[in-house]
Amino acid sequence: MWMDTKAEEKEASRSRASLGQRVLNGLLFFTGDMEHLNKYMQDKVFGLLLAVWGLRGVSRVILANNPLSGALILAALCWASPWQALLGTLGVLTSTLAAVIMGQDGAEVSGGLHGFNGMLVSMLMGVFSSAGDWYWWLLLPACLGSATCVFLFSGLAPLLDRWDLPVAVFPFNIVIVLYLLCTGPYNPYFPHHPATHAGPMEINATELMAVEVLRGIPLGVGQIFACGALGPSLLILGAVLLYSPLLAAHALLGSAVGTLAGLSMAVRHESLYSGLSGFNGALGCMAVGGLFFTFNWRTHLYAIASAFLSAYADIALSNLLGTVGLPACSWAATMIATLMLLLTGSLSTYRIPMGQVMSPEHNLRSRKQWKAGKTAEGESTNV
Amino acid sequence: MWMDTKAEEKEASRSRASLGQRVLNGLLFFTGDMEHLNKYMQDKVFGLLLAVWGLRGVSRVILANNPLSGALILAALCWASPWQALLGTLGVLTSTLAAVIMGQDGAEVSGGLHGFNGMLVSMLMGVFSSAGDWYWWLLLPACLGSATCVFLFSGLAPLLDRWDLPVAVFPFNIVIVLYLLCTGPYNPYFPHHPATHAGPMEINATELMAVEVLRGIPLGVGQIFACGALGPSLLILGAVLLYSPLLAAHALLGSAVGTLAGLSMAVRHESLYSGLSGFNGALGCMAVGGLFFTFNWRTHLYAIASAFLSAYADIALSNLLGTVGLPACSWAATMIATLMLLLTGSLSTYRIPMGQVMSPEHNLRSRKQWKAGKTAEGESTNV
Amino acid sequence: MWMDTKAEEKEASRSRASLGQRVLNGLLFFTGDMEHLNKYMQDKVFGLLLAVWGLRGVSRVILANNPLSGALILAALCWASPWQALLGTLGVLTSTLAAVIMGQDGAEVSGGLHGFNGMLVSMLMGVFSSAGDWYWWLLLPACLGSATCVFLFSGLAPLLDRWDLPVAVFPFNIVIVLYLLCTGPYNPYFPHHPATHAGPMEINATELMAVEVLRGIPLGVGQIFACGALGPSLLILGAVLLYSPLLAAHALLGSAVGTLAGLSMAVRHESLYSGLSGFNGALGCMAVGGLFFTFNWRTHLYAIASAFLSAYADIALSNLLGTVGLPACSWAATMIATLMLLLTGSLSTYRIPMGQVMSPEHNLRSRKQWKAGKTAEGESTNV
Repeated sequence: MWMDTKAEEKEASRSRASLGQRVLNGLLFFTGDMEHLNKYMQDKVFGLLLAVWGLRGVSRVILANNPLSGALILAALCWASPWQALLGTLGVLTSTLAAVIMGQDGAEVSGGLHGFNGMLVSMLMGVFSSAGDWYWWLLLPACLGSATCVFLFSGLAPLLDRWDLPVAVFPFNIVIVLYLLCTGPYNPYFPHHPATHAGPMEINATELMAVEVLRGIPLGVGQIFACGALGPSLLILGAVLLYSPLLAAHALLGSAVGTLAGLSMAVRHESLYSGLSGFNGALGCMAVGGLFFTFNWRTHLYAIASAFLSAYADIALSNLLGTVGLPACSWAATMIATLMLLLTGSLSTYRIPMGQVMSPEHNLRSRKQWKAGKTAEGESTNV
Repeated sequence: MWMDTKAEEKEASRSRASLGQRVLNGLLFFTGDMEHLNKYMQDKVFGLLLAVWGLRGVSRVILANNPLSGALILAALCWASPWQALLGTLGVLTSTLAAVIMGQDGAEVSGGLHGFNGMLVSMLMGVFSSAGDWYWWLLLPACLGSATCVFLFSGLAPLLDRWDLPVAVFPFNIVIVLYLLCTGPYNPYFPHHPATHAGPMEINATELMAVEVLRGIPLGVGQIFACGALGPSLLILGAVLLYSPLLAAHALLGSAVGTLAGLSMAVRHESLYSGLSGFNGALGCMAVGGLFFTFNWRTHLYAIASAFLSAYADIALSNLLGTVGLPACSWAATMIATLMLLLTGSLSTYRIPMGQVMSPEHNLRSRKQWKAGKTAEGESTNV
Repeated sequence: MWMDTKAEEKEASRSRASLGQRVLNGLLFFTGDMEHLNKYMQDKVFGLLLAVWGLRGVSRVILANNPLSGALILAALCWASPWQALLGTLGVLTSTLAAVIMGQDGAEVSGGLHGFNGMLVSMLMGVFSSAGDWYWWLLLPACLGSATCVFLFSGLAPLLDRWDLPVAVFPFNIVIVLYLLCTGPYNPYFPHHPATHAGPMEINATELMAVEVLRGIPLGVGQIFACGALGPSLLILGAVLLYSPLLAAHALLGSAVGTLAGLSMAVRHESLYSGLSGFNGALGCMAVGGLFFTFNWRTHLYAIASAFLSAYADIALSNLLGTVGLPACSWAATMIATLMLLLTGSLSTYRIPMGQVMSPEHNLRSRKQWKAGKTAEGESTNV
């Protein structure tokens, strides 16, 4: 009886699907990409919109896309250093505003894509500055540098689009290197610390402490935001966990791989303790393990390979750039992730097109639903 | 009565248009791109053709395309240093001839596109040579370097064409850097001065002289041809004025912006006085303000931004390359101009396709005519 | 009478052609690309297949594609240094296996395209290592470095494919530079010699010996495999001769051109004697003269130009990279060959599409047959 007309059946299945969808939405309200938020936001005042775009931008630094994660990260940065948090907030707002003024694509702006580079530039200017905290003149290059990121993002996008590649943090890496080169260590207005080699230029005199090395693994996640304190780093990890547990697991795994790579190359102990050895590995691991590729055991192995490659490339680049007093930033992870996205062969079959990249869990689910839908369809056609 | 047939009206408007066109052509005979010259040149001897192609090439260095401007610039260079003028002439002729021999596209050759890189390479070899003027052996690398520019121009064109980008002075920048690296400072045959840092590596001991800084602004235009004397620099500015007043205004503006950027970064005073701080800004400003984009207040603002970015990038690159004794040449302006051409958003709507780039005034006029034609058409269809 | 039916005539000509083909095949059984081998190999065990793929990979280093050449080269390397030959064999097998595991394109793997970069990386690690021969720990980075080449090959291919360019030895150059940077000269596990400048940083105190310089020319061919002994270098040259006499002639010519370029720039005498000045020239000359372009007197001239450009660019790059203790490897030849493939104008008309590149003799023959076929066709249609 319940099967007497096809239309009825279809409607029923639709209502069941929509019920399941609703329950799922309820559970996942604060996790994942929070796409539903965009609908509620349509007629809000500009200030509120900008805040949400900015918070998305903050979370984008660590490959997440969730305003709540962004808020948690900002809280962690505030805990670690209020001056850094101020610089970061200024950077993300300046570059988002610059993108609005320069007429960039609305979807990109509201997705926070124009915020994260500016935030990193602004924060790293503060980290490398040797003028101390609350040196207000620094706000000037911070604003200009953040705005410059929009130029680079917008200019690199058509180049990388040809291969469906993301711009990622290339703008940040370019701008911060140019800023440090431009000012130089002895600039009278904007002095900064020269970067030190990560490599074993001087032999490590002290014994290696295993506890400190293990402590460096979660710190590696915090170092993505140039944060070297344990508490805030764990809070940042929590923010990633809120967005996607898979991504958080890969962040820790990548940081551990990076630390291992650092040990195998006998880098300076301070690099291991502070988590600086781990953060490129973490970024490289996160990008491949779930975000840009559907998660499975194969992509998981590739993610580990990506973490190793990122970590070794980071050691190499920091040795090279260290000869002219420059930091390697996240050049290594950015380039290795780009390389992984270009790979042909077995990995490319799991690649998610750039326009459909969402949280790893969402990617997995949509693939399962799609498969299930296909099976159900097959069965119904058999009837 | 004068409107009784549509055909009559159309003919009348056509004749009026052609009359206006003729008057305009008369006025603009020696200014702008002098396209009409190409028609008169069709059956001339090869020597004359080569001279015109070469003069166009000379003017191309400063983004103009006018044989008379080229002749004026050559005169200015001769005034500043006959040896430099000889090297420049040799460079532009060698690379143009090499392009003919290598079977490059005829329109490119006759437009002077294969001359300007060779000219710059040849002249800069003379500038950096520490063997003094009239060192005849230098003609050998000057010829070879100029011919190499054709290889690089021809090879980079297919790469950059994908994004409708010009090859610009990339070949010059690559060849001169390779030449300086190849010979090194202590070469027994071709010794050269090592480049000095632009950055504040040593603290400026002397007071800054405002008059000298102001004098550096027109010198910045001359420095595009590595010319550091005021008179010839003003003559070069005059040559640009002949091609396009808008371009000349942007050259001065960009040089001023570059000087300002230099002041803000406390570069060496000699850089400011000699105009070396200004010339990248001038090039960056000229490229965006009118040449590759239709001139209006928006592109004007972008041109100022481009000048600032070029100037800061130049300081950064000269600090970087200075560590290995290399000059930054015009890398900064070339890369920033390329970036501006790639920008998406509001700037890209004013972009002129590479094949239609002519003098800024011509671009403005053709856009106005096109708009006027559209309006008139709209009115006539209303009738 | 023998011409009474058209069908009969056609069949006869076909059988004559196939007879000629068979004789030709017989003559050329062990020379050229040995494509026929692929048919006999279809059902063989994996170990044998891997060996042939590996031998093809070995010969690919010197732009050949012939398993017998590969075997000869391996013998030469074994003669020069068994440890180097072991490292090379390990490298070529590891990277070929890695490519199989990573699901790379089967035709690429069986053509040896995934082997040569790994081989070079592995061998050069041994050359630069300061831990002496038979330092077994080196096998670890050798394996990892070789496998990394597959990542880079697979990732660079889609980028370069847009312009129908080969990946060539870019992966090798990138991986070896990163490895040397990563370990640094004082690494406790993997120490290595810093590279010395090729340029005239210190004035040559000794007299130049002409015999030694001439001896450097064949050594330049051996230096493509980092082999500095005369006997093995001649054997390697013999292996190229087996593949293609034209290629071997261009290898010697290019090495001579490179030595000439080195003399003109007054490089260190050791560079000339050891053949290090010649090998980039040899590679640049081989790529243009016959391999990627149909051989004729024009491409021959371009090949000489390519050899000169490669040699000068190598001197420049080794001076640049020498400042941070890095070798220039074959960056110069790889980039100049890529540039030549991008050239527009007269050279591009002789370019062979990347998918049809075979031995120079085969390229010449197929073009002649095609021309002859066209003439015959024209005559038959006249009848």
